[in-house]
Order: sequence, then C-alpha cells, then structure tokens
Amino acid sequence: MTIQPTDFKLFGSDALKAAFRRHASGVAIITSVSESGEPIGFTATSVTSLGSNPPLVSFNIAQGSSSYEHLLPGVKVAIHVLKAENLGLAQRLAGPKAERFREGGFSWVHGVPVFTEAAAIIIGSIRTRLEVAANAVVVLDIESGYENAEAEPLLYFRRGYLTTGERLADNY
Amino acid sequence: MTIQPTDFKLFGSDALKAAFRRHASGVAIITSVSESGEPIGFTATSVTSLGSNPPLVSFNIAQGSSSYEHLLPGVKVAIHVLKAENLGLAQRLAGPKAERFREGGFSWVHGVPVFTEAAAIIIGSIRTRLEVAANAVVVLDIESGYENAEAEPLLYFRRGYLTTGERLADNY
Repeated sequence: MTIQPTDFKLFGSDALKAAFRRHASGVAIITSVSESGEPIGFTATSVTSLGSNPPLVSFNIAQGSSSYEHLLPGVKVAIHVLKAENLGLAQRLAGPKAERFREGGFSWVHGVPVFTEAAAIIIGSIRTRLEVAANAVVVLDIESGYENAEAEPLLYFRRGYLTTGERLADNY
Repeated sequence: MTIQPTDFKLFGSDALKAAFRRHASGVAIITSVSESGEPIGFTATSVTSLGSNPPLVSFNIAQGSSSYEHLLPGVKVAIHVLKAENLGLAQRLAGPKAERFREGGFSWVHGVPVFTEAAAIIIGSIRTRLEVAANAVVVLDIESGYENAEAEPLLYFRRGYLTTGERLADNY
C-alpha cells in the first residue's frame, strides 16, 4: 500500500491523541514527600529507563501538577512498578488527593512513602528536570531497589486497566 | 507489611533491571532519514506523550546509537504505534540494520520513511535533545498523523512480545 502526504489527515493534538489511543503503557506509582513532610504521590504511565550506566529513569509530568513544585533536584522519589493485582492501588493514587495516603498501607523508607505490595520499588534522587513548554521530563539517579515475586504486569490502554495476554514471540 | 531500608537489597543498575523486568511497555518504530537520504529506523519502547498543548512526544536513546547523529533539531521523524499484527515489523526494525528497509514495504511521506501497516503514525520535527549522561531524551513537535483501525496493541515484557489480555477496569 502506498500512502500520500494527504493521507495524513490528523493535525497537532488530534494526531497525538489518535496515536496514544492505540498505544499501551505499563503503570507505575511515583511517590515523594513535601517540604512539610506530607506524602505525595500519583499514578503515571510515562516511566522509562534512561540507561543503566549510570542507572537513570525518566518520567514526564505537567509543570502545572500540584506535585511538581515538590519534585526538585536532590529530592528522593520512589517509583513503584505495578502488577495486575495492584489495580486498586493504581486507582487510589489516580483518585482524590485526600484519599491517596489516608488508608495507610505504606511505609517510610529513606524518607519516602512506599507501597510494599508493588511488584518492584526503586528509590532514587532527582538528578535534573528538563522543562519543555508546559511539561517536564524528570530524571532520577537510581540508588536502591526492592522486588517482590515476578507477576503479570498492570497496563493502561484505551482509558482502562488491563493485563497481558498471549506471548507472541521471545526476543533473547 | 512493614518494610525497612535494609529490605532494599538491590543497588544501582541491579535495582533498575529488577524493576524493568516487571514493567511492560508499548512498542513503537521510530524512523527518519540520514543527511545522505538513507532511511534509518529502530524499534523503541520509550515513546511517551509530553503534553498535548503543544503536542509533544519524547523518546529515550543512547548517544552511542548509530541513529543518534542523524536525530538533530529540526529533522523530521515518524513514530509508528504498533499493533499485535505488526510483530514482524517490530522484529525487523530491531534486527540487522541492512535488513530493516531492504524488503521495502515503506513509503516516503514528508521526506520520512513510513510503514503504513502500523496502527497509527505521527510525523513531527525534533524540537530539542536533552542529553543526560550517555543518553538523551529526544522531544518532537507533532505535526500530522495517520490512523488505521483500532487494534490490539503490541507490548514488550520480560524480553518478549505480547498483546493485551483481560480488561480489569475502565477509567472514564
């Protein structure tokens, strides 16, 4: 099939939305602490490795987010990789702020609130924030990690939560 | 369950690897063109939205990658979101460079090679490259897009390709 420039009928944010409607992501919870010692956290689908030597992770956030003012260079952050069984946790940390930490179920480790039922947790310090238009890429230096047993991952796709299905091919 | 700092038994890149072994990603193909007019492209799992106003997309790449020298500010890039049926395309663009474009199956649109069987394609221009240690976050301004019918997405997890399974919850 050949295609012409005129077949690209979507522009700007409509093109972006059409593409991400077809794109699935892993789900993570990002937590940290405010200057006054309150736990902060949110569900995110933008967590990505940025190389292993040195070990770096990035995530994207709107500068207008209420968490952004706390995520300063040097601040400790925990990233929780979620499994399918963590669905309720993903929903809670995507819901009303007053409910996110009210039920407890978290521990303080290195001054950061962590949810120990996550599939894995990594703690790091913010190395830099790369501001682009109204958003930012936050880069963490990874320091230490905690793992639970391997499990089916939690995914976000088409405005819902899913888990994985058929394995199509190995890539060893 | 409470947890202690001493339960964080993994450090640095070992912590990173344990976390990403448990994290699933959507799969995309990124293409562009070299200064001499040759198509370049690779399979990537780091494509992420960086806000819709203006519409921006980011992906992460090693500065040592052979593609990196071509991905300069202003250069046009296509991002293909892949569906499960695009498994062969994902494998081809992750394989030997000489094979990636040899079989054809691509068209030139706005000077960029595109694979029209992808679930969706967005074309943009590189706005900036944010270099961090040996890696970089590449940020694109999205210009136009092309979409095929919605389909089951292609995922990468535990060194293999998968598709989605059970839908666990809506998030409307």
